[in-house]
Amino acid sequence: MEVTRTNYAELSSEIEEAIKSCSFIAVDGEFTGLNNGPSNLSPFDSPAEYYAKMLSGSMDFLFVQFGLSVFRHLSDFKYENKTYVFYLFPDTSNRQAPDVRFLCQASSISFLAKHGFDFNKLFRDGIPYLKPSDESALRESMEARRKLWEQTLSSPQPHIDVPAAQKPQVDEVMTQIKELLNPDCDKPEVRVEKCSAFVRKLVYQTVREEMSGSGISVKTEKGVLVARKGVEKEQLEVEKQKKAEEEELEIKNAVGFVSIVQTILNSNKLMVGHNFLLDLCHIVERFVDHLPQDYKEFKEMVNSLFPKIIDTKFLCSEGPLRDLFPSTVLPAVKETVSKPPFQLPEITSPEGRGVQLESENYHDSGYDAYVTGICFLSALRYLESNGEKVHSVNSPLLNKTLNRLHLMRIPDSCINLGGKDPEPSRAHVFHVTFPKTWTSEHLNQFFSPFGMIHISWINDTKAWVSLNDRSQADRATKILGKKSSKLAEVTVVAHAQFQASFVSPTTSLGSRAHVSSSLAATKRKLLHSNGQGQEDGGLRNKKQRLSSTNHSGTVSEKNAKVSEVSQLEAASAKPSNDNFPVDDNWG
Amino acid sequence: MEVTRTNYAELSSEIEEAIKSCSFIAVDGEFTGLNNGPSNLSPFDSPAEYYAKMLSGSMDFLFVQFGLSVFRHLSDFKYENKTYVFYLFPDTSNRQAPDVRFLCQASSISFLAKHGFDFNKLFRDGIPYLKPSDESALRESMEARRKLWEQTLSSPQPHIDVPAAQKPQVDEVMTQIKELLNPDCDKPEVRVEKCSAFVRKLVYQTVREEMSGSGISVKTEKGVLVARKGVEKEQLEVEKQKKAEEEELEIKNAVGFVSIVQTILNSNKLMVGHNFLLDLCHIVERFVDHLPQDYKEFKEMVNSLFPKIIDTKFLCSEGPLRDLFPSTVLPAVKETVSKPPFQLPEITSPEGRGVQLESENYHDSGYDAYVTGICFLSALRYLESNGEKVHSVNSPLLNKTLNRLHLMRIPDSCINLGGKDPEPSRAHVFHVTFPKTWTSEHLNQFFSPFGMIHISWINDTKAWVSLNDRSQADRATKILGKKSSKLAEVTVVAHAQFQASFVSPTTSLGSRAHVSSSLAATKRKLLHSNGQGQEDGGLRNKKQRLSSTNHSGTVSEKNAKVSEVSQLEAASAKPSNDNFPVDDNWG
Repeated sequence: MEVTRTNYAELSSEIEEAIKSCSFIAVDGEFTGLNNGPSNLSPFDSPAEYYAKMLSGSMDFLFVQFGLSVFRHLSDFKYENKTYVFYLFPDTSNRQAPDVRFLCQASSISFLAKHGFDFNKLFRDGIPYLKPSDESALRESMEARRKLWEQTLSSPQPHIDVPAAQKPQVDEVMTQIKELLNPDCDKPEVRVEKCSAFVRKLVYQTVREEMSGSGISVKTEKGVLVARKGVEKEQLEVEKQKKAEEEELEIKNAVGFVSIVQTILNSNKLMVGHNFLLDLCHIVERFVDHLPQDYKEFKEMVNSLFPKIIDTKFLCSEGPLRDLFPSTVLPAVKETVSKPPFQLPEITSPEGRGVQLESENYHDSGYDAYVTGICFLSALRYLESNGEKVHSVNSPLLNKTLNRLHLMRIPDSCINLGGKDPEPSRAHVFHVTFPKTWTSEHLNQFFSPFGMIHISWINDTKAWVSLNDRSQADRATKILGKKSSKLAEVTVVAHAQFQASFVSPTTSLGSRAHVSSSLAATKRKLLHSNGQGQEDGGLRNKKQRLSSTNHSGTVSEKNAKVSEVSQLEAASAKPSNDNFPVDDNWG
Repeated sequence: MEVTRTNYAELSSEIEEAIKSCSFIAVDGEFTGLNNGPSNLSPFDSPAEYYAKMLSGSMDFLFVQFGLSVFRHLSDFKYENKTYVFYLFPDTSNRQAPDVRFLCQASSISFLAKHGFDFNKLFRDGIPYLKPSDESALRESMEARRKLWEQTLSSPQPHIDVPAAQKPQVDEVMTQIKELLNPDCDKPEVRVEKCSAFVRKLVYQTVREEMSGSGISVKTEKGVLVARKGVEKEQLEVEKQKKAEEEELEIKNAVGFVSIVQTILNSNKLMVGHNFLLDLCHIVERFVDHLPQDYKEFKEMVNSLFPKIIDTKFLCSEGPLRDLFPSTVLPAVKETVSKPPFQLPEITSPEGRGVQLESENYHDSGYDAYVTGICFLSALRYLESNGEKVHSVNSPLLNKTLNRLHLMRIPDSCINLGGKDPEPSRAHVFHVTFPKTWTSEHLNQFFSPFGMIHISWINDTKAWVSLNDRSQADRATKILGKKSSKLAEVTVVAHAQFQASFVSPTTSLGSRAHVSSSLAATKRKLLHSNGQGQEDGGLRNKKQRLSSTNHSGTVSEKNAKVSEVSQLEAASAKPSNDNFPVDDNWG
């Protein structure tokens, strides 16, 4: 069910009821950029470094579509589902709400447009939202405005001498107004159409000073000055009250979608998402509060807001499920759970609230949220199939997955919101500096005594290199120190030693300001991007999407498509002993 | 005529021909933000300050629609017109071109969407563009990539020992390939499907080392390893040539709309725009080259790119036309020139290339460009009506208008691209500091001995105040110095003295990074925004749009709509002796 500004008010209580009565909630978001998370990740980033990069690079993009899929357990493996797709766009009708500026990434926008995302609907009918801090600021500013009025009312007004240019008009209007006091006058009001704000101001002043207690009041209605007799004090109160109610409605409309998020937060229901970290960050940043700079604070904040979280990407990559999922991108996960040993749940939906699983409508946040929920249920059933079949979303079998968030391109770590993050060994990882002319060939040769390696480029002359065979770590550390000392311009530093040597630059927020990507960066990367799937830095989502995700090697589509004869191919194909599969846009 | 990616190639030579053969070109642009120019203008900014603010605040928005309306003189007051509306969006299919990030302003996006702008068409079918510097970078990166290949071809390859894990597969593939050399073999090729990039690399190496001169070549086609016998050197050259041609086509497609801009530049035709500065800046920045920081360089650059420019907004605000145009926003200009003493030209257009003047399709860049051209012709005819009726776009009557650009909200200055800018006196302008509790009432009273004033707020405690009666300047300078010294917290400094006292902060480019507008700023402004049309800083386009544009005073729509009884109104209405009409989004 699509939810826009036009049907939001009508549907909101239904949706809130659905949230309160469900067993769990699956969600998904679409953004105007970096749907895939930050582009400058290294597979050896700590969770804190990962978070800092996400914060500095991804949060200025807009949250444009929120998929909410609520599942209510009926019996056995039967669930009722209701799925809602919210189009979200900041309010621009309320002049006192912020006029949001946001960043877009051309590739993400094109990608969404090609997948049928309706931007016209978004921009015309998107539901507004205002997070609590902005709501408070709006209330404060309205309050301040009201107070200023009242203060001005009760304090003596500075008198302005009527300038000569305005005097004839002010006198003319005053004559008309005074006529209202004539007992023979049967007009209830005087209306003056062509009257500037300044003249009206002067008329108000004159009425206040010369006609106090006369029962004459002056106001402006759609630019027309209107003077009436016999306006009672009670009426003034009624109008004030009416105005206050109007303002309250205006605020409620501006808060918009945030009230749905509040209902979700208050429900304390289990939240399920696929590759959930980015969505969670955007949900908090746009609808709850600014994300803290401090990683520990971030964990505490999200954990207290969402005490029960399952990231299905983490669920499928770890523990007993790991070997059953050849790929953990969402369409592949759906494929896997659609066949034995998995089984899909039986789903019913009220008219217009359901999703057709067969539609393959990926990248619609409602479809993705629904598929995520289905995958979660299938995986849970499999986990329980050897024990008691309770199909409970509170199953203790989920304990090792609960509140763990998958980190893109960092397969051996995660964010554990409820406790300590894993601290995988980096003894097999080296920071290598080398001459500009080096390609991955040279690195492979340099490290050949220790078997296959994975290269994560930093720039033309620097890379992280990790040994596939971790048992070689000690030997490599000893030998490479010597070896590099013989080669000019080559240095090899162990990961821990390198990290200790300086404060990580990744926590700098400077890149938040970065607007247009530099072709120079792309150019630099190009020299190393043939057939080497795992690159960091300026690579694009798309490029990453096009890379295959198996462990045996990645080939860019470019190489795969363009026919080249043997020697060109031989030159461009590089050994791709990539342990870090590159995920695509689906997460 | 709408021009998108789908019909651009087909139409481009027609359009280029139309540009070359026309009498003049009218253009208009639509952007993703600040269609109205920078929001932090002061009416006392110098042209250089104005330019610096535009550069720092407006250039990260995207140029999304370019209206091109070319007029060719037929006879007397008859013209042929062809109008094209280009939807423009950066290329995201070419992985080596930059993945542009751009800024959007929610109010501008909403505004365009409400006026029927088709964002889906934009994002799906927008024509790409790549300015010359980006094109060069793209060529360089492609060249670098090619060189790397060739270099690798001609230099000895580092040998990689075949690892034990890959050896069986490599051996198996090599056996198959060697079979091709068997005279009895009638297969022309061997295809190996399941083969990682690394294994392919090892196979290439083995073929190179063991089968040199055998006539066997190996390449990859869509991920499949293909070995063939008898591939000639000529074929290799043909394939290289084909690849080079494909790359050239790829570059041509990426350059896209920039070739139209090049044709315009080369034509040296008279360029006409309405409120032209912002459009010109965006045209240069997106399609020509980065705008220089230095104002003088900017003038020289634009003047050399576009040697003949008419800004119809400047044309209608100055000289003999000034008193004939009650407003210079585009729809008002069109209204004025549609009635005597003006006369509309007679226009013919080829099928599908014309514009219906009656459609009132404002904010479509094609319509706006066309109306601009029509207004220019009508104004020119009026100017010539007392002299020789040559209707020439080279009329010397335009000399005082040529290459002058209107500055929004700065009615007494302009940018003169071809010479010295005006230097209007600022002797009647004062920089005033005052207590936080002050409103415009207090300022009006403070300055009352010198007549009406205009207030341009800087913040809660600072404003620029100008005297409407410039002859009061000297007297005010003498008296106010004394007056302020008696009041604590009030200081009055003459404009020239204030400017001299510090380097203008407006040249800082820090705000380029500013992404989300702060509600606090809006809040602050609120305290002073009642009925006072001319504010600077955080005010929104919309707010400005809603303000009336006459000289007698401006009233915000809010005040005009909400019924308030006399005293509330009296408190909120402020004297609005605004000499600086606030223009709307039409320019």
